[in-house]
Amino acid sequence: MNKYVHAHEQKRAELLRNRARMLIACPDQPGIVAAVSRFLFEQGANIVQSDQHSMDPEGGMFFIRVEFDLERLDERVDALRAAFAEVANAFRMDWQLFRASEAKKLAIFVSKEDHCLLELLWQWQAGDLAADIAMVISNHTDMQETVKSFGIPFYHVPVTADTKAEAERRQLELTLGKVDTIILARYMQIVSPKFLEHFPNRIINIHHSFLPAFVGGKPYAQAYNRGVKIIGATAHYVTEELDGGPIIEQDVQRVNHKATIEDLKRIGRHIERIVLARAVSWHLEDRIIVRHNKTVVFD
Amino acid sequence: MNKYVHAHEQKRAELLRNRARMLIACPDQPGIVAAVSRFLFEQGANIVQSDQHSMDPEGGMFFIRVEFDLERLDERVDALRAAFAEVANAFRMDWQLFRASEAKKLAIFVSKEDHCLLELLWQWQAGDLAADIAMVISNHTDMQETVKSFGIPFYHVPVTADTKAEAERRQLELTLGKVDTIILARYMQIVSPKFLEHFPNRIINIHHSFLPAFVGGKPYAQAYNRGVKIIGATAHYVTEELDGGPIIEQDVQRVNHKATIEDLKRIGRHIERIVLARAVSWHLEDRIIVRHNKTVVFD
Amino acid sequence: MNKYVHAHEQKRAELLRNRARMLIACPDQPGIVAAVSRFLFEQGANIVQSDQHSMDPEGGMFFIRVEFDLERLDERVDALRAAFAEVANAFRMDWQLFRASEAKKLAIFVSKEDHCLLELLWQWQAGDLAADIAMVISNHTDMQETVKSFGIPFYHVPVTADTKAEAERRQLELTLGKVDTIILARYMQIVSPKFLEHFPNRIINIHHSFLPAFVGGKPYAQAYNRGVKIIGATAHYVTEELDGGPIIEQDVQRVNHKATIEDLKRIGRHIERIVLARAVSWHLEDRIIVRHNKTVVFD
Amino acid sequence: MNKYVHAHEQKRAELLRNRARMLIACPDQPGIVAAVSRFLFEQGANIVQSDQHSMDPEGGMFFIRVEFDLERLDERVDALRAAFAEVANAFRMDWQLFRASEAKKLAIFVSKEDHCLLELLWQWQAGDLAADIAMVISNHTDMQETVKSFGIPFYHVPVTADTKAEAERRQLELTLGKVDTIILARYMQIVSPKFLEHFPNRIINIHHSFLPAFVGGKPYAQAYNRGVKIIGATAHYVTEELDGGPIIEQDVQRVNHKATIEDLKRIGRHIERIVLARAVSWHLEDRIIVRHNKTVVFD
Repeated sequence: MNKYVHAHEQKRAELLRNRARMLIACPDQPGIVAAVSRFLFEQGANIVQSDQHSMDPEGGMFFIRVEFDLERLDERVDALRAAFAEVANAFRMDWQLFRASEAKKLAIFVSKEDHCLLELLWQWQAGDLAADIAMVISNHTDMQETVKSFGIPFYHVPVTADTKAEAERRQLELTLGKVDTIILARYMQIVSPKFLEHFPNRIINIHHSFLPAFVGGKPYAQAYNRGVKIIGATAHYVTEELDGGPIIEQDVQRVNHKATIEDLKRIGRHIERIVLARAVSWHLEDRIIVRHNKTVVFD
Repeated sequence: MNKYVHAHEQKRAELLRNRARMLIACPDQPGIVAAVSRFLFEQGANIVQSDQHSMDPEGGMFFIRVEFDLERLDERVDALRAAFAEVANAFRMDWQLFRASEAKKLAIFVSKEDHCLLELLWQWQAGDLAADIAMVISNHTDMQETVKSFGIPFYHVPVTADTKAEAERRQLELTLGKVDTIILARYMQIVSPKFLEHFPNRIINIHHSFLPAFVGGKPYAQAYNRGVKIIGATAHYVTEELDGGPIIEQDVQRVNHKATIEDLKRIGRHIERIVLARAVSWHLEDRIIVRHNKTVVFD
Repeated sequence: MNKYVHAHEQKRAELLRNRARMLIACPDQPGIVAAVSRFLFEQGANIVQSDQHSMDPEGGMFFIRVEFDLERLDERVDALRAAFAEVANAFRMDWQLFRASEAKKLAIFVSKEDHCLLELLWQWQAGDLAADIAMVISNHTDMQETVKSFGIPFYHVPVTADTKAEAERRQLELTLGKVDTIILARYMQIVSPKFLEHFPNRIINIHHSFLPAFVGGKPYAQAYNRGVKIIGATAHYVTEELDGGPIIEQDVQRVNHKATIEDLKRIGRHIERIVLARAVSWHLEDRIIVRHNKTVVFD
Repeated sequence: MNKYVHAHEQKRAELLRNRARMLIACPDQPGIVAAVSRFLFEQGANIVQSDQHSMDPEGGMFFIRVEFDLERLDERVDALRAAFAEVANAFRMDWQLFRASEAKKLAIFVSKEDHCLLELLWQWQAGDLAADIAMVISNHTDMQETVKSFGIPFYHVPVTADTKAEAERRQLELTLGKVDTIILARYMQIVSPKFLEHFPNRIINIHHSFLPAFVGGKPYAQAYNRGVKIIGATAHYVTEELDGGPIIEQDVQRVNHKATIEDLKRIGRHIERIVLARAVSWHLEDRIIVRHNKTVVFD
């Protein structure tokens, strides 16, 4: 980390030391916003940003993201959580409180293609991704040197049809309790339901098509054959259904008849890395609530 | 208005009868959201949507838009306003409370080009613009029949260099106290400061360029000569500075070297009408706060 | 047609009187462009625009669109066609020669939704669609008055499960030999293979999704349920496979978790009409070659 | 360069060995395309891609880009050039013939910001930029290690108000006769007219705004203060007029009132690097003709 980034990080850390974020989901009813905001006011907190979303005013769900500053947050965060539990119970809230200064710990899973991994490492180095990248795990060694040059631990966990269960055991051993979130940065392997159980809504995949178009393998070849005029990429949380999890972000780019499959791959690489990086940053900043296989993104 | 639209409108009206919207701007300090939401809760209101924006947590401005439902709003709205004045005073708020069921009254000013006018009339007829289009005023008669076919009054107010002051007097006579907002839908005439005084931040213009590029006349010719690769349009509130008022919305489209000035105009027409219609709908739904020649748009 | 449009049309007609367009597809081999351009040069034609596309330099297909001006085209077009047949035979070309001044005759099929129809009528009236709109056919009467106000014949051909074959007979009677191209502007009925036979690659449909995502009915509800972050529309030539024909044009717009199904429909309407109008204008200007269920669009 | 890239490069080199590209500009008249394509046919060349653009059929300019394959191009290229000179003289053509296998030699000028430099290096390493990056020159040493890790020579040429002339002499010494094109990848220094003379239309700059909006310094601060709803970046050839040279490519991204100047810079970085990389790749593939301070881009 060079000096420039270092100073930048320091200033950021200072700014974020007293900042917290809450994500709340509960059945809609009058008084939710009033209760939450009164609670925060009485604690002495200052609301910096607050977003709500009501799925349906009569009998639906209500979602809140609130970002606030509170003096001496580090000393007071446990008491704050305890005190809020009362409000939460009254409204049957699912809720989480995060400190902005506690960067989430990431493991990035990667195969041979480097573009998504490099984009994440690069944005991280530029100070644009507020994460602690704890490790990169790959079934190949191609990325080893690159990853090490960023000062990040690299683990080679080979995967074959025969050794898949063993490989996942090794991956769990490396990640369980050590990382919060796993990013599949073009990992190209299907993760088992058993593995998923350990990271519910905490594994983000980038699929190289505009889902639900072109599920499964070789989406650029599928897109070429169908003759679409726009291609895309989709970042989503991984669930048991292949390419069927809650969509976080999508983007697209116009193509024409001149584009070969190779061109689509090249153009697609740029979309993939932008879309994945955006989804990861929203996850890191606690902007996403998952509900019924869909996401609310407070961006 | 055909039966389909009529049924649609009825359902909408019913839904909106008890809905209100508040726009608030005040100096930032702790407790604003808490005070507003507690007030609404105590009145028995249910918050449907709420957005905030803080320009700067230390000493800046705080902006709120809150949309809520309140039973028997029509009977209670005056008391509600009176009661809120106390909260507002305590926080030195600039604030407005609108009833969603009271459609804003519009006058559309137009010259010879019909595309922006037609888009507004068409969206209005489709039930997408919740306005009461009170009149169309034009310095030409080209649009007269079209406007009348929509059942909207049309006034011809000719403008020449000599008769400009007289024309504005006539326009004021037609609009003052009768319309809330004026839309310049390619009106192509400069409105005098004296006229503007009567409608502060309530006159919306569409400029056919991506401002601040290509201020003034013939922006498509300017764009052609500069060889830009993207053209755009800008909707803004009109102020004394030509094309310098607070920007509400902008959009763009890619063009290439094949495009003639005529092509740019044709492509631009589609951008203009979309951008203007979007800006008008945000204004009608009380989603815009103006501050220091910039807009906060809670979309 | 008002005076403004009339003058516009006259100038356009004059410009286009001597303009012709050729669309050519043939197996790739050296000398194709040379042969075509030499032929045109020797005839005294001036090439205004010329585009080529080679699917694969070794053994693929070659596609050409060439637009040229030739003095006294009306007198000479038959001789020109006869003379070109020799070149065409030598290279085994599929080819067509169109005169720009001969506007294609369109039938627009429509159901109850008006937005796509209105966009086409409007662009046509503005001089942006160089077509002869010969008739509008609908299974309902909702659009009758609107269509007549544009001076275009309207035919009501009701369709029920029982009368479908009879309805198609009536539609064929109206269109066969009288129109070149049929536009399904949200017609919402499946056209039988027997009907399609009469208009190969000459029926354009607008599907209200980003194909191949959300084939079939209620695509906005499908999109809502899947939680996509971008919605789109697709214009394609109709083939026997439902929503499976060659794609001409697609476009998209970003949406978020706030959008209801009604919002998606409203946003989608704007995408649909733009996409359909663009596809129709390319078809009218002979810019599209269909090959293997894909399109080459020389835009 | 790793093995993967190496194999990729070899295949590409093979494919391109016999490929040539011509760029032609001449006064419009009948027979230009015929003459060029007959010449190539008689030489035994096969046209792979051909694009034309006529500025105005009566008395304007005509532009051609033609890409063709010719057996044993290396042995025959000099004879080809000599033979074409006759055709060129007859039509008063400005023309250039490039071999696709001869990668252009680049110097990249950079200051302290790394994002544009990194994007170019990365795309180059991925095989997406067919260039020979001969050197990176910087007025600071921040990028030295990064550049060296790619195996590219790095030269530190400090620039102060006093030493500017001396610095340019040193830059010329390093680049003259050694590089074809200079990329200003956020170099942040104004290049003197005297320096420009040596590289006419061969210096590409990235400006961090949507030109002609926000010429000069601190464009993101300017954009923030004007309250625009879309920001952009522009790649252009450098001329004596500050930020006034022929525009090659532009792109934009939507922003809203929440964005701080820091946010605009961060979002803008992604636009800048994409736009610059696209412009550079078009330049490398001989897709750009400059005329009257505008570009024709045959993409």
